[in-house]
Amino acid sequence: MRREALLRTIRGVYAEHGFTEIATPVVEPIERLRDSDGGENVGMIFEIQRRGIGLDELRSAASPHDLNDLGLRYDLTVPLARFYATEHSRLPHVARLIQIGPVWRAEKPQKGRYRQFTQCDIDTIGEPGTLAEVELIVATLRALKAIGIADAVVRLNDRRLLIGLLQSCGISPDLFPPTLVIIDKLDKVGVEGVGLQLERLGIGQAARTLTQHLARFTESPGDVERFLETIGPAAEVPVAAVADHEAIMSSVEDLGYGASVRFDPSLVRGLGYYTGPIFEIEHEASGKSVGGGGRYDGMIGRFLKRDVPACGFSLGFDRVLEIAPESVGQADKRLALIYPRDAATSAVLRRQAVLIDQGFQVTLMPRAKNMKRVFGEARALGLSSYTLLDRSEISELPVDS
Amino acid sequence: MRREALLRTIRGVYAEHGFTEIATPVVEPIERLRDSDGGENVGMIFEIQRRGIGLDELRSAASPHDLNDLGLRYDLTVPLARFYATEHSRLPHVARLIQIGPVWRAEKPQKGRYRQFTQCDIDTIGEPGTLAEVELIVATLRALKAIGIADAVVRLNDRRLLIGLLQSCGISPDLFPPTLVIIDKLDKVGVEGVGLQLERLGIGQAARTLTQHLARFTESPGDVERFLETIGPAAEVPVAAVADHEAIMSSVEDLGYGASVRFDPSLVRGLGYYTGPIFEIEHEASGKSVGGGGRYDGMIGRFLKRDVPACGFSLGFDRVLEIAPESVGQADKRLALIYPRDAATSAVLRRQAVLIDQGFQVTLMPRAKNMKRVFGEARALGLSSYTLLDRSEISELPVDS
Repeated sequence: MRREALLRTIRGVYAEHGFTEIATPVVEPIERLRDSDGGENVGMIFEIQRRGIGLDELRSAASPHDLNDLGLRYDLTVPLARFYATEHSRLPHVARLIQIGPVWRAEKPQKGRYRQFTQCDIDTIGEPGTLAEVELIVATLRALKAIGIADAVVRLNDRRLLIGLLQSCGISPDLFPPTLVIIDKLDKVGVEGVGLQLERLGIGQAARTLTQHLARFTESPGDVERFLETIGPAAEVPVAAVADHEAIMSSVEDLGYGASVRFDPSLVRGLGYYTGPIFEIEHEASGKSVGGGGRYDGMIGRFLKRDVPACGFSLGFDRVLEIAPESVGQADKRLALIYPRDAATSAVLRRQAVLIDQGFQVTLMPRAKNMKRVFGEARALGLSSYTLLDRSEISELPVDS
Repeated sequence: MRREALLRTIRGVYAEHGFTEIATPVVEPIERLRDSDGGENVGMIFEIQRRGIGLDELRSAASPHDLNDLGLRYDLTVPLARFYATEHSRLPHVARLIQIGPVWRAEKPQKGRYRQFTQCDIDTIGEPGTLAEVELIVATLRALKAIGIADAVVRLNDRRLLIGLLQSCGISPDLFPPTLVIIDKLDKVGVEGVGLQLERLGIGQAARTLTQHLARFTESPGDVERFLETIGPAAEVPVAAVADHEAIMSSVEDLGYGASVRFDPSLVRGLGYYTGPIFEIEHEASGKSVGGGGRYDGMIGRFLKRDVPACGFSLGFDRVLEIAPESVGQADKRLALIYPRDAATSAVLRRQAVLIDQGFQVTLMPRAKNMKRVFGEARALGLSSYTLLDRSEISELPVDS
């Protein structure tokens, strides 16, 4: 119930920004999933076996994977790309879409890590400017605030700044992917751990320089100017990347969200498909990231064979649910209608109808010898009051004694 | 967007009856699904292959099914039974639960028949009396009315009356299942078609008697008294079945739903697990059933190894969506904020924030040379009005010319 109340609130905020909701299938053709830019998620797909496989085919299969034709989506971006490829001619030039639904990853389940979890995505497709990023950040912070999470902070970086950082240290482009994978572990293993893993890449001085930079950023991130000074003039950071970053920072500042957004030059984001600004939400109460996103201009258009600007922000709803205050999403006009077992059904339901008309949510509960047990159940359901079938007054539920 | 608006309304009505929502995984252990009483649905499971299967195992598998460990649920009852088995000690004696979610059946997709579709279930667990049935019927009819479907009719029957009907014709119990499968096709093939198929069972006079009864019921169903007269005194219909049926009918009558519920002695419901009253919703605009349910006292307790009274009503949400009036679920305070491409992002979003505070849903749209195109897109999004960044007035969207 609380889940749905929170989702309703989040949906409401996104609708205020003109986002409209689409529903996509959870099952995708397996090739679409395997061929996506999903990074390590591609190795964690639940694969569905083709129906009606005969023994001959089983015997002659070169791999168990050959028997499968479908898979459960590991995020909402592959379905979104497919949706856009099919529906783009019916969508506005700038399309704002909400997707809320379950995704699956075949990991070992553990605390805070589920095999099925719910993502809550907003995506702006067709907007090349940073208006997209700023609106996504504002809408997400407003949605979190609406469910009682007012102290979330968005860490902001840009893939192009990250690349500049690696270049400035003298790392060669073919080593960017493993280097990024290592930097991405900064939260978990700290600068020292990252330094050790970088050493093992066998890039000598470059590893030490990068580690020094990361140590400095971790201590005090500073702004993008200081970042550029730190990495020095050797780096070829595109002017547009710096301009985009500064535009986003100054806009969120102007809009009063300055305290909720901070530059983090060491932020990576795991997946491979980002092309510009990237962001991630951190929150004190959750050790882990509760959401993130960024610009991924190459991905959405892949089925259309053309570049389509796109930018998205995804909330990990199960983690959001964990940190939202308990009080959010509790209805207050909920009562128990307690009736004798031998009462006429229509009399009970008629009284219920009257109470519903008065705005109550009415749970029918049969009277029992042990009324303490009945009141206990009503409290456990989160009800606040009760009434008896043959009485008109509504009373507070007695406190457990 | 309309989907979510309709679901929100349905959830709201069910909450008024004190139902609380649970979320269950869409993936179940494959044995649970295969061993369930799911009738023909068990043959339509999407099976998920175990991860990390080696070539040796592939070669030695006796059947492709041996490689699979999970499956997509085909309805919401198996997950409900598992939920109840785990959580029953924390639930009230009478638990009212909502489940809304996708289910899968590996059928050939065709008009009105999807491989993934959404079920919208309410279940009352722990209530042995017909109060459960009556509340489920009333809540479902109210939910449909709330989304603009006021003319739905619930067809009501009882598994025990059906069994009495078969007995009265002299059909032996081992032939009940195939006979019920045939009667279930009455809607599709008519009395004559059913008669032909019954003949092929090789039960001679019994087939003819049953066909005659069905013809009479189809022509004019009558009430349960007339049903008992028709099938004659040889049938052993339990007194409780007749009493339950009459209690339900008189209660819905008393509550003003008499015109929306009618006895249909030929109603079967496909699945095997029903034990008492069964119901199905028919609606003129949809050739097919848009929902159904009934009492299934044996199913929920199977993991607990004891009988637990249970009764449920399921809406096929995709079909409900098709017949709900278009106008339902459209927000009216939605407008386009049209801004010049070179406007400052924070100025655009500040104006958006002001309009949101005034209660609008605000879609940002960049100005274009061809404003007709922009207005067309706004209309296609279902917006009713627009405003310009540098003007304060809000105008109706011009009609397409």
